[in-house]
Amino acid sequence: MTTKTRRRRKSVSPALPAIQHPPYIKRKVPVYDLLNEENLQKLEDQAEWILSEIGMEFRGDAVALALFKEAGATVTGEHVRFDKGHVRQLCATAPSQFEMVARNRGKSIMFGGDNVIFAPAYGSPFVSDLKGGRRYGTVKDFENFVKLTHMSPWLHHQSGTLCEPVDEAVNKRHLDMVYAHLRYGEKPFMGGVTAPERAVESIEMAEIVFGRAFMQTNCVIQGNINVNSPLVFDDVMSGALRVYAAANQGLVISPFILGGAMAPVTMGAALAQAHAEAMVGIALAQLVRPGCPVVYGNFLTTMDLKTGAPTFGTPESTLAAQAIGQLARRLNIPFRCGGHYTASKLCDAQAMQESADNMMAGLTAGANFIFQAAGWLEGGLTMGYEKFILDADHCGQLQRYLGGLNLDDNNLGGESFLEAGIGSNFLGTAHTLANFRTANHQADMPNNDSFEQWADDGRKTAEQRANERWQQLLREYEAPAIDPAVDEALLEYMAKKKAGRPDEWY
Amino acid sequence: MTTKTRRRRKSVSPALPAIQHPPYIKRKVPVYDLLNEENLQKLEDQAEWILSEIGMEFRGDAVALALFKEAGATVTGEHVRFDKGHVRQLCATAPSQFEMVARNRGKSIMFGGDNVIFAPAYGSPFVSDLKGGRRYGTVKDFENFVKLTHMSPWLHHQSGTLCEPVDEAVNKRHLDMVYAHLRYGEKPFMGGVTAPERAVESIEMAEIVFGRAFMQTNCVIQGNINVNSPLVFDDVMSGALRVYAAANQGLVISPFILGGAMAPVTMGAALAQAHAEAMVGIALAQLVRPGCPVVYGNFLTTMDLKTGAPTFGTPESTLAAQAIGQLARRLNIPFRCGGHYTASKLCDAQAMQESADNMMAGLTAGANFIFQAAGWLEGGLTMGYEKFILDADHCGQLQRYLGGLNLDDNNLGGESFLEAGIGSNFLGTAHTLANFRTANHQADMPNNDSFEQWADDGRKTAEQRANERWQQLLREYEAPAIDPAVDEALLEYMAKKKAGRPDEWY
Repeated sequence: MTTKTRRRRKSVSPALPAIQHPPYIKRKVPVYDLLNEENLQKLEDQAEWILSEIGMEFRGDAVALALFKEAGATVTGEHVRFDKGHVRQLCATAPSQFEMVARNRGKSIMFGGDNVIFAPAYGSPFVSDLKGGRRYGTVKDFENFVKLTHMSPWLHHQSGTLCEPVDEAVNKRHLDMVYAHLRYGEKPFMGGVTAPERAVESIEMAEIVFGRAFMQTNCVIQGNINVNSPLVFDDVMSGALRVYAAANQGLVISPFILGGAMAPVTMGAALAQAHAEAMVGIALAQLVRPGCPVVYGNFLTTMDLKTGAPTFGTPESTLAAQAIGQLARRLNIPFRCGGHYTASKLCDAQAMQESADNMMAGLTAGANFIFQAAGWLEGGLTMGYEKFILDADHCGQLQRYLGGLNLDDNNLGGESFLEAGIGSNFLGTAHTLANFRTANHQADMPNNDSFEQWADDGRKTAEQRANERWQQLLREYEAPAIDPAVDEALLEYMAKKKAGRPDEWY
Repeated sequence: MTTKTRRRRKSVSPALPAIQHPPYIKRKVPVYDLLNEENLQKLEDQAEWILSEIGMEFRGDAVALALFKEAGATVTGEHVRFDKGHVRQLCATAPSQFEMVARNRGKSIMFGGDNVIFAPAYGSPFVSDLKGGRRYGTVKDFENFVKLTHMSPWLHHQSGTLCEPVDEAVNKRHLDMVYAHLRYGEKPFMGGVTAPERAVESIEMAEIVFGRAFMQTNCVIQGNINVNSPLVFDDVMSGALRVYAAANQGLVISPFILGGAMAPVTMGAALAQAHAEAMVGIALAQLVRPGCPVVYGNFLTTMDLKTGAPTFGTPESTLAAQAIGQLARRLNIPFRCGGHYTASKLCDAQAMQESADNMMAGLTAGANFIFQAAGWLEGGLTMGYEKFILDADHCGQLQRYLGGLNLDDNNLGGESFLEAGIGSNFLGTAHTLANFRTANHQADMPNNDSFEQWADDGRKTAEQRANERWQQLLREYEAPAIDPAVDEALLEYMAKKKAGRPDEWY
């Protein structure tokens, strides 16, 4: 007897109905306010003190320095200091909400407010799967993760560098990545940021699909900008930032901090620094183009005090996320945080304990954009196929959580009590039959079978089941439609840009 | 080179200082309020409606029925109905906080208010470990789990039936369990509840240690009472409840609900029922002995809509926990919720994803008592050795989380910024050196090493590391001191009670 037959025999109903999946989440549960007003003020004051007394450096970016000088900052060489309150004021033109338009308009998403968006992991040089182990990522792997993201109803955005496609040169691979995002998926995505000219080419490819005029007033692509914490922007990051801002495209600006290394070891100090850095990045974007769509990012975690190794899903990083969420809300700018982070090398118990905690940190913190939400392993060095599947499924559970409780009369179930009475089960009541299809979210990956049935089915771990699932999904994948002329133009653009460009490998 | 040497070489410091562990947690982060006043009122109204219109049954317990009748309830045979507001009023004598005295007075704990207590899992017939697999629990396993609980700084309470010691008769094993709790541990614990006379014997054994007079005014043992949901107390549960209440000992009273089976499938209805049932149990305890120490319990989860199997760590159960936490706070009675629940048969990715979510549900819900916090597998049917280790370690992380952020001047780290300046790391600042030992909680079980080091060390999963750890702990275990005369008296009591009692096996 197959598992399927056995399950069917036990069913209370023949099948669950097809579900319409919204393109992003409307949050219906309150955010969590960790800190009181006095403590929030302390963090904001400390951030202002850092900006006025310590300042920041923009290395090699004369344009950024000139913009800050013109805006009234104190610029000495590459060093910039700001009067208290100045940076906050410069951030004021950033929109509190904005739309990001998808190739499939039905998958366009809203950043900010009560909206929540999940996107997979970004930036790992390695990929891994249960059978093949850990290896460098390739263009093929990259395409696979675009496809898996396309197929997940719980991921609303395709992220950007789903893995580094290490089989293509560093100065060319952004073209392959943007092509894969546009060809194999149809949700919003991020382009290249590893050099300003790669940002330009990413935007130009988006223009082939969306049209230049349309993009003057619509965000269709984003750049993911990390601050070189502590308190530095290098010209690669600030240069790429300026390209996206000038094109009125999106930016996610995140200080990248392990407390104790890129910031002081205590969380109050690290929070103040992160807040200062994020605000300065946002301010630069707004100076380039007032009103351009930005996301206030947070990547603030801890390190192992014995070895200096980065640690994830820790209590301190959860507290930091919840605090910084409050700071972001007080700026009224869409907020990025959370993710299924882990230091584990495997999709094991450690991986999920850390990942679940860190996701809940982002959710309680009120994050609008949670990327790194699927696949992340080994502190971000590896994109895991099985981890991706289990994380994405977990995103579905969290999406249901964010829908909250609807306590209408049907939900309060008075009829059911009258029918069932006392001491008998509710399985057969009219209320149960009318509601069981929609009452609970049905996650895909957990095994809830009896021990005996689970043993009969091969005693599979969650990782083994996920291994089967991603292979099945890739077999079943169907590419979204694209105008052949547009596809040809994209391929032509990519070929032209690659032609004659000597490979760079670092 | 051994791992230890390698780690030592990388150390930023020779050793972390010995840490004093408090006997329970003082919560310093706010609780999470999911529902607004209007929705809380709806749930309370629905619970009152259930109690007045549907009522509950006390099967075979004439004493309980008489107590309710005398208190003014409408009693018809075994059926009891209550005027609106009556049960709530009967709960009013329950203390909002109470102390539970441990054999080692330094490990006494406080229930209620901002206090949080973690205790391991309760009630599984099976145990499992990585090498031996799943098997019935024994007295030896039970003792092992008392020992592991004794050694964990993050478990504040020894729970009760850590596993069913199936090698001893059902009508005798409570004696072995209470003895193990008193002999191999020294934290608070729970006694037998599977028959009123077993509750009596459990309390009598506690009296040998604590003294009868002392126990008249001090809680030293608890009974864990489950309602036979929907809306029934059988005489075993209500009888055991009355024994503990009469002795002024503790009670944890928890409806046991899978929505759709023991309650309607919609969460609003299940919440109202759970609230009604918990209040009635508390009311009975207060009628037996006004002021006796009780805990308002919650065990409300969901089921797989296709198979009817129980499911854990689900979004609906998290929402329910958060809502019921608010209801319990409005009664001002210590609240039990959460736990490292999972349906997984293994200590794998599923187990920890579900467990972490459900623990966070309990924490955000404001639970004062989180039992089932270590070891739980397979929907509570199995106590897992490796799961126990990883869960307990996670409890340490959550304890740190509940400590919140202390944003004093040192934490805000001004000096560190002045010393490090811009663009250089903070590892060597005086502020880092002064704070790194205490800044971050150091969890024991996560592996944060580089991939290469982890691979060199044998590519161990979290489960494999936990397997090594519990064996090491049991080797290193030292029994807490006990007065030999007391020990002898306990053994004598046990022998006397067992002598000539025919074994019962069901």
